Amino acid sequence: MALSIEAFGASPDGGGDATPAARLALARLREGGERRLVLPAGRLDFWPDRATERYAFVANNDEGLKRIAFPILDMNGVEIVGEGTRLVFHGRLVPFLVDRSRHVRLSGFSIDWERSFHSEAEILAEHRLGLDLRIPARFPYRIVGGRLVFEGEAGAEHALGNALEWDPVRRETAPFAADNYGIGERYAAEAIGAREVRLTTRLNRPLPRVGNRMVLVDERRDCPAIVVGGSTDVTIRDVDIHHAGAMGVIAQRSETIRLERVRVTPPPGSDRLVSTQNDATHFVQCRGEVALIDCLFENQMDDATNIHGVYAQVTERIRADAVELRLMHRQQHGLEFVTAGEFLQLAHADTLETFAEAGVKAVQRVNKEFFRVTFERPPAVLPRPGDVATNLSWTADATIRGCTARANRARGFLISTPGRVVVEANRFHVPGAAILIEGDARSWYEAGPVRDVAICGNVFDDCNYGVWGRAAIQIGPAVDAVRQPTLRYHANVRIEGNAFIAFDERLVHARCVDGLVIRGNTLRRSTTHAPGGQGPVLDIDHCSRVETEPPAPA
Amino acid sequence: MALSIEAFGASPDGGGDATPAARLALARLREGGERRLVLPAGRLDFWPDRATERYAFVANNDEGLKRIAFPILDMNGVEIVGEGTRLVFHGRLVPFLVDRSRHVRLSGFSIDWERSFHSEAEILAEHRLGLDLRIPARFPYRIVGGRLVFEGEAGAEHALGNALEWDPVRRETAPFAADNYGIGERYAAEAIGAREVRLTTRLNRPLPRVGNRMVLVDERRDCPAIVVGGSTDVTIRDVDIHHAGAMGVIAQRSETIRLERVRVTPPPGSDRLVSTQNDATHFVQCRGEVALIDCLFENQMDDATNIHGVYAQVTERIRADAVELRLMHRQQHGLEFVTAGEFLQLAHADTLETFAEAGVKAVQRVNKEFFRVTFERPPAVLPRPGDVATNLSWTADATIRGCTARANRARGFLISTPGRVVVEANRFHVPGAAILIEGDARSWYEAGPVRDVAICGNVFDDCNYGVWGRAAIQIGPAVDAVRQPTLRYHANVRIEGNAFIAFDERLVHARCVDGLVIRGNTLRRSTTHAPGGQGPVLDIDHCSRVETEPPAPA
Repeated sequence: MALSIEAFGASPDGGGDATPAARLALARLREGGERRLVLPAGRLDFWPDRATERYAFVANNDEGLKRIAFPILDMNGVEIVGEGTRLVFHGRLVPFLVDRSRHVRLSGFSIDWERSFHSEAEILAEHRLGLDLRIPARFPYRIVGGRLVFEGEAGAEHALGNALEWDPVRRETAPFAADNYGIGERYAAEAIGAREVRLTTRLNRPLPRVGNRMVLVDERRDCPAIVVGGSTDVTIRDVDIHHAGAMGVIAQRSETIRLERVRVTPPPGSDRLVSTQNDATHFVQCRGEVALIDCLFENQMDDATNIHGVYAQVTERIRADAVELRLMHRQQHGLEFVTAGEFLQLAHADTLETFAEAGVKAVQRVNKEFFRVTFERPPAVLPRPGDVATNLSWTADATIRGCTARANRARGFLISTPGRVVVEANRFHVPGAAILIEGDARSWYEAGPVRDVAICGNVFDDCNYGVWGRAAIQIGPAVDAVRQPTLRYHANVRIEGNAFIAFDERLVHARCVDGLVIRGNTLRRSTTHAPGGQGPVLDIDHCSRVETEPPAPA
Repeated sequence: MALSIEAFGASPDGGGDATPAARLALARLREGGERRLVLPAGRLDFWPDRATERYAFVANNDEGLKRIAFPILDMNGVEIVGEGTRLVFHGRLVPFLVDRSRHVRLSGFSIDWERSFHSEAEILAEHRLGLDLRIPARFPYRIVGGRLVFEGEAGAEHALGNALEWDPVRRETAPFAADNYGIGERYAAEAIGAREVRLTTRLNRPLPRVGNRMVLVDERRDCPAIVVGGSTDVTIRDVDIHHAGAMGVIAQRSETIRLERVRVTPPPGSDRLVSTQNDATHFVQCRGEVALIDCLFENQMDDATNIHGVYAQVTERIRADAVELRLMHRQQHGLEFVTAGEFLQLAHADTLETFAEAGVKAVQRVNKEFFRVTFERPPAVLPRPGDVATNLSWTADATIRGCTARANRARGFLISTPGRVVVEANRFHVPGAAILIEGDARSWYEAGPVRDVAICGNVFDDCNYGVWGRAAIQIGPAVDAVRQPTLRYHANVRIEGNAFIAFDERLVHARCVDGLVIRGNTLRRSTTHAPGGQGPVLDIDHCSRVETEPPAPA
């Protein structure tokens, strides 16, 4: 028998705050006995006021003291089962936080916010010094001292961090539209009519078109929809994520995560163009298998997924067998990067060449940034300050099958994991690279190389209609060009049996790969746009053991 | 024998980061054996990078994930003894956090920051639409999108939150200078010369004078100098606090705190006008005795001290014997307001009249704002939503003797505690009320009434030269005037044997006191300023059991 959230005071379609009921129901589940919580069909609303609170470090999102509607903390075996239930959130609230738990199943519901974290405005006029915008009533705002302050619910307010042009007819980013990050420091807003605002600012080229829509996004990433950390065996099935004030699903240092029929998409029947404010999904330093099966990732304001490790920097060699390490990117702070008994791989940051591996005997955490690591024995080659380390004990296999990635900002799948990776039978229509295999130790600090990637049977449908890629499939570490001729960072990538439809015939861009097979693919030329750049169909350099055949006409 | 911080790698006057040494030394003390850590004479520098981290709720300051130079956490018996040692901090760092500890002694050092959190600018010109300022090189800033961004160290940045005019010759706030809170939302800055900035803004009256100095303060209160929470028997002796990015000493829910020869004052030989960014000292829901002996509180940007309880609001009556309570002021969030076994007093918020007391059987904390309290039995009169509760188990006695409070922003001593209070042999020269006895349940939620206050043998030297008071001694709860005739919120205040020197002859303003004695005081008229307001020397209304005599000419 299952518990119903109704037994704890929530009533579907009742309009009241279901947060206390969710808290009480989870407390009951935590006591044991029952494992299954049912969210009956209808709409449930959640406010932050009486939500559980926890300071959370969420990789690639923003850390902070979060309010959590469904706190699944230190639990073993829990199912939250909706019946097509609509969960609607109000203000700054994290819908689901799964932390240090095992065997978690979430299914059968949708997640949306009454008032989205981002806003969308119609472009009334473009002039040399900026834009005139009409902001619909469902995106409340005020102008304070020349700044736009977007008003959320429950006291939440949002600044203007990035402005990106979208085409409301195609419901995708306008062709080759430019990001306007940092606009928050260089604009003045004034009211020019009822819900009409003039932004005086310098926009990046190409300038937006009248009639298109500017999507106005805060740079804060406070409220992901589903956060998974330190957990094992988490399955999310038949869940629609219509919105989040950060990423849709973000998992870190977790093992075996399966998303099946997770659909990141704006709510049905809504005029809203944008789904989640950042990546649809993201997996940081996970292990076991990450599986994305039959999912839809569309209209989110960043990549469809990113599966990667982390490079920490050596800041001091304390002894031959001990180093101080630092998590460099602020959105990696607080990650449990390594614990005793795990293995680190050491590399030079400028070349990304590995030079030693070392078992870890002890870790002393100083704070969210720094920790002191003692090795079992001194590494064969001693690291120097500036070198980087990645954790070999936490690397994931990945299976992405039957998914659609489309009409978002930026790229499709970012793959940086040495595990076995299969990307198969997916469909892409994304404005940047559909698949990006990179790795860097100088800005995002996202490790690491791939060792076994199969990209097979996918359809790449008119990708690269934006500013976020050099080819439909782009492979190569972020190192200086001078390092590339001898570096073979990635290995064993097979691109086979895929169908490319392309106005931009740059299909594959590959650097620093040892073992690259491209064969049995087809290409159908399209005329949707003029290409965003010129280059060979297969642009391959500084690679070894390469076997390619040009795509056959389709 | 004592440990020296030098044994852990810090070298006085060495210029390096002493933070790791402080952390290691305290870890050693925590292991037991030694109780005393010596900070040898000279200068020690501290940066936040490798400091211990803790999320801290600090009442009347801002909560947050803090870096802490000296984390005195869960310790019993620790002395940190300087030899006139100068501790200099860099960036966002809390020098001392004493938490859940007993028998702590701090002595013999000074606290300052290399770059203060506030900035000070010379007024070059005042024009109808704002000010021209010259900002000395030691207050680095840049102008970004029309905003002043003050640059701290270690990445710290400070916005402009309040601007207050100071007289650099008298080294006190300019006569009747107005606060300009909220200026951060209504100004534009532009460079008009090397380190010269024009602020276009509407300032509150009176307008500042050319040649005076504007003190420019962020509204964030992130870095108090010394924080004491959940601790017992803490003594701070011979400590100079030259600066803090919040309050100087803030203690909450702690028992028996003694400050002896604590001097809050700008560093000697410095041209800097301002010491701490907010109150010199502050005591929230403490018990036992709070003693301030022979201290100096000058040039800080808020009151000299404030000793008060907290009113939490009843937000729901769950059952006859259970309520939901909420901490209303955001800077009280996270306070451990009440635990099982303690006593709450219930009052109506609009009249502050108490109507019941109740023992607490159980407390369930929901988050930093809300908690659910079960009483031992239903209170004699049941509370309703909107009523307030204060904790009778945590009320302090206070002794303030031999202190000087002068030349700060706002008031001197704010006393809101029902314990025995002695304010004796102090000297005041503050721009607001020297002593304020208030209590409110509508904005700051600072409880509560006084029951026994002796104000004896003090010198009140030209107070009320600013906009923060109605008399040198001001008593009365913050309730609507219509409530006052019958309300006797405070009781037993004796003002005796004090010497008043005054250009503003409003010496005592008292409302709603039962038992008020004013006798044996002297008044010497001064002509320093024109009075800021008119009114009787003793303005007493809605009081009972009043015994007064006019001050004798001195």
